[in-house]
Amino acid sequence: MKFIAEINVMPQKEILDPQGKAVKLGLHNLGIDDVSDVRIGKHITLALDADSEAAAQQQVETACSKLLANMIMEDYTYSLKEA
Amino acid sequence: MKFIAEINVMPQKEILDPQGKAVKLGLHNLGIDDVSDVRIGKHITLALDADSEAAAQQQVETACSKLLANMIMEDYTYSLKEA
Repeated sequence: MKFIAEINVMPQKEILDPQGKAVKLGLHNLGIDDVSDVRIGKHITLALDADSEAAAQQQVETACSKLLANMIMEDYTYSLKEA
Repeated sequence: MKFIAEINVMPQKEILDPQGKAVKLGLHNLGIDDVSDVRIGKHITLALDADSEAAAQQQVETACSKLLANMIMEDYTYSLKEA
């Protein structure tokens, strides 16, 4: 079975996000003043083969926790759907 | 009204994604061999104030097309919900 995983890796809430701050400033310069918070992270799409949804989920968990996210500073969320 | 926009900015399909290729290789080294495609982009969350959903949508469109995405090489998608 083929699955598509949509993964978001974001800086943890307590962690400063200088890139987000810079974008907020940029938005203000564009005239978009009503933005109160901007956070920037990574979005990853994975296409993978697995025998079952549970197996696919385990692969995605491993990929996120061992490679894609730095668990000290980042959190990840993902959704999995059959392709 | 307060809104949260969840924005994904991804490299266009025709564009090579060297970062995605590197991650795919890294996943194979981790023992996750059944991954056929990896694409990496940005995920941005914006908290904004607007009078209506339509106004919020317009602000997000402006932010995406003028600042967050390089329309030559990237595409964006977003979802908007009331906070």
